[in-house]
Amino acid sequence: MGKAAYSSVETPAVLVDLDIAERNIIRFQAYCDEHGLKLRPHIKTHKLPRLARFQIEKGAVGITCQKLSEADAMTDGTGIDDVLITYNLVGEAKQERLKALAGKIKLRVVADSAAVVEGLSAAMNGSGHKLTVLIECDTGARRCGVATPEAAAELAGRIASSPNLHFGGLMTYPPVGGTEAVQEFMTKAKSLIEAFGTPVETITSGGSPDMWRAHEAPVVTEYRPGTYVYNDRSLVERGICGFDDCALHVLATVVSVPDAHRAIIDAGSKVLTSDLLGLTGYGHVVGRPDIAVDNLSEEHGRLVSREPVGFKVGDRVRIVPNHACVVANMLDAVVLTRGEDVLGPEPVVARGKVW
Amino acid sequence: MGKAAYSSVETPAVLVDLDIAERNIIRFQAYCDEHGLKLRPHIKTHKLPRLARFQIEKGAVGITCQKLSEADAMTDGTGIDDVLITYNLVGEAKQERLKALAGKIKLRVVADSAAVVEGLSAAMNGSGHKLTVLIECDTGARRCGVATPEAAAELAGRIASSPNLHFGGLMTYPPVGGTEAVQEFMTKAKSLIEAFGTPVETITSGGSPDMWRAHEAPVVTEYRPGTYVYNDRSLVERGICGFDDCALHVLATVVSVPDAHRAIIDAGSKVLTSDLLGLTGYGHVVGRPDIAVDNLSEEHGRLVSREPVGFKVGDRVRIVPNHACVVANMLDAVVLTRGEDVLGPEPVVARGKVW
Repeated sequence: MGKAAYSSVETPAVLVDLDIAERNIIRFQAYCDEHGLKLRPHIKTHKLPRLARFQIEKGAVGITCQKLSEADAMTDGTGIDDVLITYNLVGEAKQERLKALAGKIKLRVVADSAAVVEGLSAAMNGSGHKLTVLIECDTGARRCGVATPEAAAELAGRIASSPNLHFGGLMTYPPVGGTEAVQEFMTKAKSLIEAFGTPVETITSGGSPDMWRAHEAPVVTEYRPGTYVYNDRSLVERGICGFDDCALHVLATVVSVPDAHRAIIDAGSKVLTSDLLGLTGYGHVVGRPDIAVDNLSEEHGRLVSREPVGFKVGDRVRIVPNHACVVANMLDAVVLTRGEDVLGPEPVVARGKVW
Repeated sequence: MGKAAYSSVETPAVLVDLDIAERNIIRFQAYCDEHGLKLRPHIKTHKLPRLARFQIEKGAVGITCQKLSEADAMTDGTGIDDVLITYNLVGEAKQERLKALAGKIKLRVVADSAAVVEGLSAAMNGSGHKLTVLIECDTGARRCGVATPEAAAELAGRIASSPNLHFGGLMTYPPVGGTEAVQEFMTKAKSLIEAFGTPVETITSGGSPDMWRAHEAPVVTEYRPGTYVYNDRSLVERGICGFDDCALHVLATVVSVPDAHRAIIDAGSKVLTSDLLGLTGYGHVVGRPDIAVDNLSEEHGRLVSREPVGFKVGDRVRIVPNHACVVANMLDAVVLTRGEDVLGPEPVVARGKVW
């Protein structure tokens, strides 16, 4: 299909340019290969088995998911069978689903407390095999994670001595700029744990903002970026990529031009989301750096400029959103393209999977 | 089902207490009845035919939708057949769908420019009947809408003289605190239009924040609140309702308690969204006014307090979100309850309908 099909795409739409996404995947795989890092991309950004398979074909060792339901969706009939879930799985319902999934694929999970470890061990009762568990470490993000290398070592001992579990290593999601802190924390934790004779097989870190600095924490063996596949305005503003590297765009139609300096588009927070990630405004209008997306309601986006906006009702605009991952979660399907060619809609099979 | 079933609800979940929602509906219907106002609730908040039917049973004259696809979902086999779409419908694909829907139900739409009016007229070519069009007026929100009563009068003439269209009146979505501005704008526009011999059948306004002041703009004949059915933290903070009037809660599980003053729950921006609506923090933890939901990532919510949080892994919390409408759009189903009784999941049939 060519340009004619493109103009018929209904708006608002989330467009994904496969040429750009594949280029982004290949480029960071090359970086990981050069530095001897295993790459285990987080699928939270694209949520598409098709792109996960491409990542694995190019050299990724498997995928990262945040929730069991994402792992189910990404492995069910897709040929993908190696998943790390970087999330504390808590509660009986999740224990049952964990046990079922662990019987089907190569699955590893994380824990950051004795309570979570006990739950994982209980989940595997009667399964006949051991679940590999990594310890989540807080290297500065102040989200989940054990707070010190000493606490990591203590929890490693607990995992290693659990009959149903196997200690698999250390995991962190560092804050932006946290590469040095990762190196320091992980080096000390590894040393403490190995002093007890327990090998630390994997040390896994993540985050697209610092992905080009991953090699500066050489203790890390595996990296889990998510956003790098699409990129977004937040990464452009951080200097990680350019707008030409952004594979995901929101296509919108101008529905009102109330005055010369304001236009309203049919994409609001139900597509662009309210994520700011520290930025001002809700996205970048391609080709129009003078315009700010200064206000969103659910179905309206407001474009304002000191210059005349120059749009008329029916014009279409492309917007690079602040945060690609959350935008990919808003609609049931994205529209795949290659440059100006429209390939068609692709169901976002792992959309809305929060369990 | 009773409490046993309640504890087995998987988290994160969006709970809707029908007792509270129905009480909210009945209360505002009584207000409208008392003041001679027609009530046409906006379904953007609940997106559930079940609650729309309840609203109509109690006296609502029909429903309001923002998009054609919402109207399709809300009327297809539901028995609901009277819809106002308060959105400029632009483009050929939407014109075709508009024509099809106008042949099935009592449908009215809006326009705020000659370009939109021309598109609506073109859509109805060959349909054999006239589409009723109201004019959207900007009474201060600076989103869509004609800017002055004079511009409204000019556009009314254009609609009234279009062979495929019928002029149906005036519509506005005012800013918070805009009741007086609505009265002033609409009185003048009505007078100008009626001076040409064209009746202004309907003057419709909306917005839950000022719903208890609707009678202070007596020129308005119809009101379109959405959020009032569920209420939310933003309306509590504005003094419109209490937390006991909030029908929608997010149920979440504590997955980590990294220190005494911090807990992490399994509901992040994929459930609570990043909507702030001018507030600080991302929700109100029921029964714990000392706690702030100070940070969200997609699957993690961070609870912090100067007091000890006192939670352990596996505890459940209920959160009143900042903005109920956007939360109802995040998951495929909500869980209906009546107090402590769980009725079960209800598909959110108009979720994600942005076309």
